[in-house]
Amino acid sequence: MSKALVVFSGGQDSTTCLGWAKNRFIHVETITFDYHQKHVIEIKQAKKIAKMLNVSNYLISFNIFEQLGDSALLEVNKNEDLNATHKNNPNLPASFVPNRNALFFTIAHAYAQKQGLTTIITGINQADYSGYPDCRKPFVKQLEHALNIGSESNIAFEYPLINLTKAQTFELSQNEGILDIVLEESHTCYNGNRTLKHVWGYGCGDCPACVLRERGWEEYIKLL
Amino acid sequence: MSKALVVFSGGQDSTTCLGWAKNRFIHVETITFDYHQKHVIEIKQAKKIAKMLNVSNYLISFNIFEQLGDSALLEVNKNEDLNATHKNNPNLPASFVPNRNALFFTIAHAYAQKQGLTTIITGINQADYSGYPDCRKPFVKQLEHALNIGSESNIAFEYPLINLTKAQTFELSQNEGILDIVLEESHTCYNGNRTLKHVWGYGCGDCPACVLRERGWEEYIKLL
Repeated sequence: MSKALVVFSGGQDSTTCLGWAKNRFIHVETITFDYHQKHVIEIKQAKKIAKMLNVSNYLISFNIFEQLGDSALLEVNKNEDLNATHKNNPNLPASFVPNRNALFFTIAHAYAQKQGLTTIITGINQADYSGYPDCRKPFVKQLEHALNIGSESNIAFEYPLINLTKAQTFELSQNEGILDIVLEESHTCYNGNRTLKHVWGYGCGDCPACVLRERGWEEYIKLL
Repeated sequence: MSKALVVFSGGQDSTTCLGWAKNRFIHVETITFDYHQKHVIEIKQAKKIAKMLNVSNYLISFNIFEQLGDSALLEVNKNEDLNATHKNNPNLPASFVPNRNALFFTIAHAYAQKQGLTTIITGINQADYSGYPDCRKPFVKQLEHALNIGSESNIAFEYPLINLTKAQTFELSQNEGILDIVLEESHTCYNGNRTLKHVWGYGCGDCPACVLRERGWEEYIKLL
């Protein structure tokens, strides 16, 4: 059993990963990024969930994406339409933050080196993914290899949700004993809404992230 | 002829790359990183050199490495010995900043997407390199591939100095017509010294970076 770092946004996927990791690794830590996203409330939820599960939560803050200014998901671009296409690439959604996962995983990998952790767990998935090319397996495999040879490390990335639909992710969180926390505490909504409560959790119900979560829940309960 | 971005520290290597790029690309921009390095003076030199060569210089600032605190090269660790071995890995020097180039190149790649630039030029070299595994060709090739598939881009990394010794880098800067600027304006010294002047430029003369530059110069003039 090795020591793991969960890249932890406080969302449904990474909360499920945290439950999964707690059941498999001798030691688990989490790392969370404050990159001035619109839905900064997820950071608060991340901290709360980590505390509930008795794991450390290291917060790294930066405003690099703000300096690049290249996504509707950033607070600095709060008036941009999240349902539009991306300014750089019409095949990608406006919420895409170029190289976001590359940056997150690079920082997580540096932190894992420092802490002597051997596995990095991320909640990326390529089944239900929101059109983000940095949520696909070939990307993470390549990046893992690059980061390891660039630092003489041997840290493995794991992505237990990679081929799961949102419905299957709900099922996994049930199996890992973390469904209640996913529903009550994990945050998904791009608009940072935590006042509207639904059977599938809190959120505006309209943004792409809420729509995906709601559909996943409906599909999941049908399968029960 | 395509449009290029030079990852520009203001040091000897990236200044040489800038001269090289100016002679080969129709449009050249530079990007510089303020990561709270001890030798922050190099940023001032980068800005000055970019202005002299009439190219834009985009500065990105962040304190991520400070939050990780994992290198003697950081201002926050200014009392640590730059000539010791690294805390994480006895095979690496204390000045190694884990995943520094991965982070730089990831940000540069995001900026290139935004600006519509097709080539990123970096001054890494694996011949005279200071024990840094993130200055080797396989690392950059892997990272290039990862970043492109993670963003549906097709941006090429070029590294004209990859197999050059420091002496050959001096020779290249001569051939590209930029040797005078390299000697007078480029900054190498880890201790940020720009008061002591030598035939090979300014610097303390004692830190690993100065020693490498001085030796390279001596070897270069022997070949003339």
